[in-house]
Amino acid sequence: MPPERVTVPAPELEQVVTDIYVAHGLRAADAATLARVLVWANLRGVDSHGVSRALRYVELCEKGEANAQPEIAISHPRPAVVAVEADRAPGPVALDAAMRAAIETARETGVAWAGVRATTLTGAIGYYTSLAADAGMIGIGIVAGMPNMAYEGAKGAAVATSPLSIAVPAASQPTVLLDMATAVIALGKITQYKNRGEPLPEGVAVTKEGEPTTDPELAAVPLPLGGAKGSGMSLVFELLTSVLTGNAIVSAFHSGDKRHRQNAALIALDVEAFTPLDEFKQSVDETLTALKNLGDDVRFPGERGASVEAERRANGIPLPKKLWESLTAASV
Amino acid sequence: MPPERVTVPAPELEQVVTDIYVAHGLRAADAATLARVLVWANLRGVDSHGVSRALRYVELCEKGEANAQPEIAISHPRPAVVAVEADRAPGPVALDAAMRAAIETARETGVAWAGVRATTLTGAIGYYTSLAADAGMIGIGIVAGMPNMAYEGAKGAAVATSPLSIAVPAASQPTVLLDMATAVIALGKITQYKNRGEPLPEGVAVTKEGEPTTDPELAAVPLPLGGAKGSGMSLVFELLTSVLTGNAIVSAFHSGDKRHRQNAALIALDVEAFTPLDEFKQSVDETLTALKNLGDDVRFPGERGASVEAERRANGIPLPKKLWESLTAASV
Repeated sequence: MPPERVTVPAPELEQVVTDIYVAHGLRAADAATLARVLVWANLRGVDSHGVSRALRYVELCEKGEANAQPEIAISHPRPAVVAVEADRAPGPVALDAAMRAAIETARETGVAWAGVRATTLTGAIGYYTSLAADAGMIGIGIVAGMPNMAYEGAKGAAVATSPLSIAVPAASQPTVLLDMATAVIALGKITQYKNRGEPLPEGVAVTKEGEPTTDPELAAVPLPLGGAKGSGMSLVFELLTSVLTGNAIVSAFHSGDKRHRQNAALIALDVEAFTPLDEFKQSVDETLTALKNLGDDVRFPGERGASVEAERRANGIPLPKKLWESLTAASV
Repeated sequence: MPPERVTVPAPELEQVVTDIYVAHGLRAADAATLARVLVWANLRGVDSHGVSRALRYVELCEKGEANAQPEIAISHPRPAVVAVEADRAPGPVALDAAMRAAIETARETGVAWAGVRATTLTGAIGYYTSLAADAGMIGIGIVAGMPNMAYEGAKGAAVATSPLSIAVPAASQPTVLLDMATAVIALGKITQYKNRGEPLPEGVAVTKEGEPTTDPELAAVPLPLGGAKGSGMSLVFELLTSVLTGNAIVSAFHSGDKRHRQNAALIALDVEAFTPLDEFKQSVDETLTALKNLGDDVRFPGERGASVEAERRANGIPLPKKLWESLTAASV
């Protein structure tokens, strides 16, 4: 029997989640940011990164792995570089601040690279790159986290399913929003197969012992996208974030330090440095139209998410009733 | 019968290829750059992007698709942005200049984004990102070219196999050098299967009509890496290069404009903006060592290329005898 569901208007859901964090000691502004990023994921149809994770942040704060009252320090060691010491902030609090600083910097310098050190669960990375697109810029984001993915030739979890997101503003089309993990399949999707009692496709995951499996109960480690390509991307993302900001995760993890943490890099590139924004957006639209004319089933990254968002903003966000009850209970 | 082979020392090969370009009207410095980039690909074992393509540049110049005497214009519309108008230069001439300008700029600003407009065949993109690594920086490069790859839901060639390269300097290990196309398989590899008379693996290519095939004779269009992921990356790379620099390829191609051209973006990020270079390189080494300790077969991106390079610098570059003869003939 599928779980009973309720439909909650986005503003109501955002308020309840904000209340949870205020009740657990976060500053009001940080609580609101965290809630906004989680609800955005639900709005876009990425429920695995939405409010189903809301209480995970409370847990991380209670265990001391995240910091409910972080002192985030933002500096500019060079004109186009933004260094963000996140002080174990809940990821959305640190990354929202980092991308806003990168956008402000890129207005002057044309491009800005924000390195975010020592954050926690970043949530849906597409939120931050979308901020840049909304500001008339191109946004690029990568995140490195705890090893949970295979690496060609190694057994067990070796590197992380570290995502890449790129957001590009369009004119009459929705923002082009690429948001992809470096794994063939997301961990959340494996759970969905498990819940439905369906076998996994071949070649997407291995067991704890590194044996290929299609049994979602035994699948412990997703495989990298395209073998050496996906695992290579994940490795360099670790180098461009964790190692660059002096907070290496992969080497520490394999030496036994398994505390939860993440690092990120966010880039804002001001389109106007190259070409008038209107012309650029028009040309983006022309490119999307040229592709869509090639077949009825052609979709561009972000297209489906934009249509889900329009529908859910109008009609509310469907949630398992049990989840909604646990959120309202935690908010008072 | 396999083709007869010769082994040519790298400096001799580079000189012969330089002579070809000087004989065909390139400036001496440009001829040397182009030869150096091609021979580098052979040194790294990427023969598909090496001197087997040398005469293709001569052809492109003779057809007017490339410009043997380009007037490359480099400007700085913003402090951290380098705008390179390549004037249809042979790709290596434009991209070498662009990455050098980006590196110089990033020494001041911390990061620099070079947008390269209207170049031609870029060759092995890893060469340019390696320049940044050799300068103690992180190098990132993307290129967009003529559509030659499938896109989810579209028949025929829709987008390009546009590559991504990321180079990261290490201490005692070779430079980490990711260099990957957004396709499952390179066009050059399909040719290798054809030459060996072997069937392709399943799921790597389709015919002109868009039908899946394992026959390398019929395979016309490689499939994108991970379906929507690879085709999405290719699309955003077009937006970040061609559309951003006002030289859209995908939309023009599907309107019937099939002249050869490429655009690129090269990023240099100065490690020292974040952390002392020595500490960074040490931490890169530690990460590589942690991974390599997980299995005897663990390799990192660039590792094999570095070992081939050491061997070929010492012992020379193996070439089909026929290719070597055609090069020496063209050089006088």
